[in-house]
Amino acid sequence: MTVVPSDLDAYLTANDERIRRELFDLLTIPSVSARSEHDADTRRAAEWIAGSLRSAGLAATVHETAGHPVVVGEYRGAPRGAPTVLVYGHYDVQPAEPLDLWTSPPFAPTVRDGRIYARGSVDDKGQLFLHVKALEAHLAVRGTLPVNVIVLAEGEEEVGSPHLAPFIEAQQDLLRCDAVVISDSAMFAPGLPSVLSSLRGLAYFQLDVQGPAQDLHSGSYGGAVVNPAMALARILATMHDADGRVAVPGFYDAVRDWPAPVREQMRGLPFQEETFREETGASALGGEQGYTVLERLWTRPTCEVNGLLSGYTGEGAKTVLPARAMAKVSCRLVPDQDPRAIERLMQEHVERVAPPGVRATVTALHGGRPWRAELDGPLFDAARRALAAAFGREPVITGEGGSIPVVGDFERVLGAPVLLMGFGLPGENAHAPDEWMSVENFTKGMRAVAVLLEEMGQG
Amino acid sequence: MTVVPSDLDAYLTANDERIRRELFDLLTIPSVSARSEHDADTRRAAEWIAGSLRSAGLAATVHETAGHPVVVGEYRGAPRGAPTVLVYGHYDVQPAEPLDLWTSPPFAPTVRDGRIYARGSVDDKGQLFLHVKALEAHLAVRGTLPVNVIVLAEGEEEVGSPHLAPFIEAQQDLLRCDAVVISDSAMFAPGLPSVLSSLRGLAYFQLDVQGPAQDLHSGSYGGAVVNPAMALARILATMHDADGRVAVPGFYDAVRDWPAPVREQMRGLPFQEETFREETGASALGGEQGYTVLERLWTRPTCEVNGLLSGYTGEGAKTVLPARAMAKVSCRLVPDQDPRAIERLMQEHVERVAPPGVRATVTALHGGRPWRAELDGPLFDAARRALAAAFGREPVITGEGGSIPVVGDFERVLGAPVLLMGFGLPGENAHAPDEWMSVENFTKGMRAVAVLLEEMGQG
Repeated sequence: MTVVPSDLDAYLTANDERIRRELFDLLTIPSVSARSEHDADTRRAAEWIAGSLRSAGLAATVHETAGHPVVVGEYRGAPRGAPTVLVYGHYDVQPAEPLDLWTSPPFAPTVRDGRIYARGSVDDKGQLFLHVKALEAHLAVRGTLPVNVIVLAEGEEEVGSPHLAPFIEAQQDLLRCDAVVISDSAMFAPGLPSVLSSLRGLAYFQLDVQGPAQDLHSGSYGGAVVNPAMALARILATMHDADGRVAVPGFYDAVRDWPAPVREQMRGLPFQEETFREETGASALGGEQGYTVLERLWTRPTCEVNGLLSGYTGEGAKTVLPARAMAKVSCRLVPDQDPRAIERLMQEHVERVAPPGVRATVTALHGGRPWRAELDGPLFDAARRALAAAFGREPVITGEGGSIPVVGDFERVLGAPVLLMGFGLPGENAHAPDEWMSVENFTKGMRAVAVLLEEMGQG
Repeated sequence: MTVVPSDLDAYLTANDERIRRELFDLLTIPSVSARSEHDADTRRAAEWIAGSLRSAGLAATVHETAGHPVVVGEYRGAPRGAPTVLVYGHYDVQPAEPLDLWTSPPFAPTVRDGRIYARGSVDDKGQLFLHVKALEAHLAVRGTLPVNVIVLAEGEEEVGSPHLAPFIEAQQDLLRCDAVVISDSAMFAPGLPSVLSSLRGLAYFQLDVQGPAQDLHSGSYGGAVVNPAMALARILATMHDADGRVAVPGFYDAVRDWPAPVREQMRGLPFQEETFREETGASALGGEQGYTVLERLWTRPTCEVNGLLSGYTGEGAKTVLPARAMAKVSCRLVPDQDPRAIERLMQEHVERVAPPGVRATVTALHGGRPWRAELDGPLFDAARRALAAAFGREPVITGEGGSIPVVGDFERVLGAPVLLMGFGLPGENAHAPDEWMSVENFTKGMRAVAVLLEEMGQG
């Protein structure tokens, strides 16, 4: 069985404190890509990553885009014939609100109970940074890397990567590679290294319902003017049937059945629905009838409300008939659903069900295609050996309910297979208050990547 | 036909500028009773009213309550045998948000096109203040009032008057009277003085739906965890049927039919549904099938959403599965619906329709009973003559969709009939940005009240 080479292991152990300090420094930068008031912070995070790549021994360039910059690190000094590996990650983070639900401030990283708490700790700064440190270990100890490496770090993942696909298209020559490695997902359970077989896609909308021209007194006008908040509720209520299926006509038309062996493997995973339920804190689970919880999460599409806003939401009572109501609505997609097709279906559906007296509009905010992995070949084999070396056991094959829209773009433009090898854990609060990353997974993750580089160099 | 006595008219004309300045001074005080950060402002408004009553020649006391104070002004020097009239109004105002929709700031009163724009201009500071100035005119010109007068000004009307009914109960002897006069409503149209025959009651709730213990990533959990925002929408969608009737079981059980003559009179009012629709800015009107717009507004109960809040509501997209969702929901009630009974029906209904996986709770925020007026007797006759004198035409009998919960309390505790004689106008934005009061109605309102006092003294 492959083991973590002792020289790399020793280097990472000896430098553990410094590496932690550097990570914490990165985590203090509030690089919230969705908020223009954080644009300077987001740029600062890009420069920080470039500096970190240079310190590790790579060349690094901050490329401008129409949005947040893309950082590209390069090492081209591998032995002739060695493959080129592209590592992708993102340095931007989700908004941290609601701030009052954080135990410690989101941009003041803190270790509690073996976890690093901070916005971006696991999604994705910590997982991006462990790649940089694995590269540093190789270069510091051995003066060279066994493969050519391109590190591509973007700053718009949390807003749908609007400028990444064009960047990849435009920079195909720079980014040409034999494999893409991404760590932006979770292991199935603590101690259980995992390789992802699928990602769901996303179609994210804003649904606006406009009623009267301005807020009205609910006593003087209520009963004769259509209430846009009630209209919004009635529109949203049409989006599922009683069995939890999405009731937007045509929604399931493009859904392909899942391969039986993958479904079989999923059913063998050590998964307790009751434990999952307890972890969420919900009183019961729900969703589409006829599927297990893991199937609902990984293999079935959804339609969710991500936000609601209308009228008076403060302390006490205000008798207002609101002028407008807004919902953020997003659909998770599975192969072969197409975000643009879903967008059209959603617009047609909302037009059909909106009552007279209000104007309902659907605006697409972002989307990404669903994806399934190739689970054969040298990339997957190297990953299996690397994870086994770092974690002491073979990885399991899992699915993922979330979306990394760029995965499909990499495959399409660069023609290289993508490996999704994540080091998060269930319950990590990736998009919620008290986001955390396991210290153990960060530590073992660096070693797994160090071995992966070596294994791919021998391929 | 009764006319406005020339001495009172001359006084009000001569002092017009000063009276306007004083009113503007009152309107600059942001006495928002719903917001604890405005407690000091609300108290300042109470003291201001007491000072104004004293300047007019009444005794005035600021009475403490467990909430905002109650101001009582008194004049007991009328001729033996003269009746006692209690004037009720409120010095608190609605919250002014959203501030960006005001043309001029809410607490910087401004006259544009014959309208006084300010939060509280018509609801109810302007209408309360015109009573004070009518009293001042009598006392300044004639040194006496034709009736004994009690002015009762509260500071909690916009939060449901929680301490007023107990105050009236406790101070029955102080407040004993033969008639109650309230100006906190609107005329049917410009130039058309109006007396109200009815008010709707109110039952105002907050509906909270709790799902998971905290916000979750909508990709990692969506499809297996019940979404509380979607659950809230589905609960709200059960509250009406396809004909616009409230579908909460038992909701209509206590509704009494409206008297045929009042319904007949209402159908004779000069009302254009299309003009009303244009005024609201809505693309079409809605509501309960089988009733005219005025019947829907005045004689039929409603269920409205006043506010919605859940999850992420900022700029851009956040893929969150919210932990909770909230709706402010209120029902307008008609005789003989009871707010507490409606509260129970609402709680039972929500419990019945809430899906497993969420906890839905209904919290009553405030309520008030519906009311119908006595349209016979000396009080109504005096009002008819007073309004005719000031406006040059007989008043019409109207209804009102809004609520003044204290009206029923006055009748019950003091045993005196209540006259609702308001000087607002349609489109006045009472609870919305750009609230205004007509300068003409303020001016004529003072004169109408001056005549009313005289007419009641002769009764």
